Amino acid sequence: MSDIRGHSPEYHARRVEGVDAERWSWREQDSSACSIARTMAVLGEPWTVLVVRDLLHGVRRFDDLVAHLGIARTVLSRRLAALVSAGLVETADYREAGRRTRREYRLTAAGRDLRPVLMALMAYGDAHLAGPDGPPVRVEHADCGAEVHLEPVCAHGHRLGPDDRLRSTPGPGAGG
Amino acid sequence: MSDIRGHSPEYHARRVEGVDAERWSWREQDSSACSIARTMAVLGEPWTVLVVRDLLHGVRRFDDLVAHLGIARTVLSRRLAALVSAGLVETADYREAGRRTRREYRLTAAGRDLRPVLMALMAYGDAHLAGPDGPPVRVEHADCGAEVHLEPVCAHGHRLGPDDRLRSTPGPGAGG
Repeated sequence: MSDIRGHSPEYHARRVEGVDAERWSWREQDSSACSIARTMAVLGEPWTVLVVRDLLHGVRRFDDLVAHLGIARTVLSRRLAALVSAGLVETADYREAGRRTRREYRLTAAGRDLRPVLMALMAYGDAHLAGPDGPPVRVEHADCGAEVHLEPVCAHGHRLGPDDRLRSTPGPGAGG
Repeated sequence: MSDIRGHSPEYHARRVEGVDAERWSWREQDSSACSIARTMAVLGEPWTVLVVRDLLHGVRRFDDLVAHLGIARTVLSRRLAALVSAGLVETADYREAGRRTRREYRLTAAGRDLRPVLMALMAYGDAHLAGPDGPPVRVEHADCGAEVHLEPVCAHGHRLGPDDRLRSTPGPGAGG
């Protein structure tokens, strides 16, 4: 942090009291005080992500999820219950005219916020695990049809490529 | 796909032969022909992501990983072996002057490409799982110190928020 020119007031305000970020090393960071660890504790079971993926694509009924995912009903029940208790999914009853009431599973706002996680997972798989045929799915902006991707940008507007260096510093929840 | 104005030649070239994307529904997509599923088959064990996280932060020696992660040695051995066989990690011997040779684990280029996945996981955890103290870690652009985030953008330059609609269409590897 030898060069702090150009930093916004927010930048300085967000420095953590009592932590010397200049001298801080990643090893001093409590390994469990980590948003990656916390998110994977929710997502760490592959089916969970695929259930969220299908819900994002409008597959919302239990039987439809079973059919599309090829998942055992007992496993799906457990994953949906875990997603509901984590606040990512809610159930709703709905009825189309002349049909019986059905229950469906819907992502909450928190669940929909997983979309960038799924996009990042997809981009990685497209680049490294797609095989000779190429990506299985293309995601496009519904309004204009152009392909969508995630771009790392910094608050100063620099667009960052894979070779640009990033630096982790302790945040307000670093603890210690 | 009622409005195709403004689409680039690449857009049309990337339409999949034999698939009517207008009428395609997500349910017709083979659930396993999916880059999310393929990536989670590599990452689906929470420790794997945390090992990658620590390697990205320069914690590269077995004993240092054990100490920082609080992971059992046997579990770490298995996760590192899986990462090596998946091509995400490679081992290297190195020696500092006057010391004995040590082995370290380094991310390959493919492994380093997981950085946006970890950034997306981290952003989600920062937003939804951080608790009252706030995010544990802040990621900044090393060159300028400004905070870094991932931004979904489309090829036409639209920056997309959580309420912008995306649409999935079959890609070249959709199979079927």
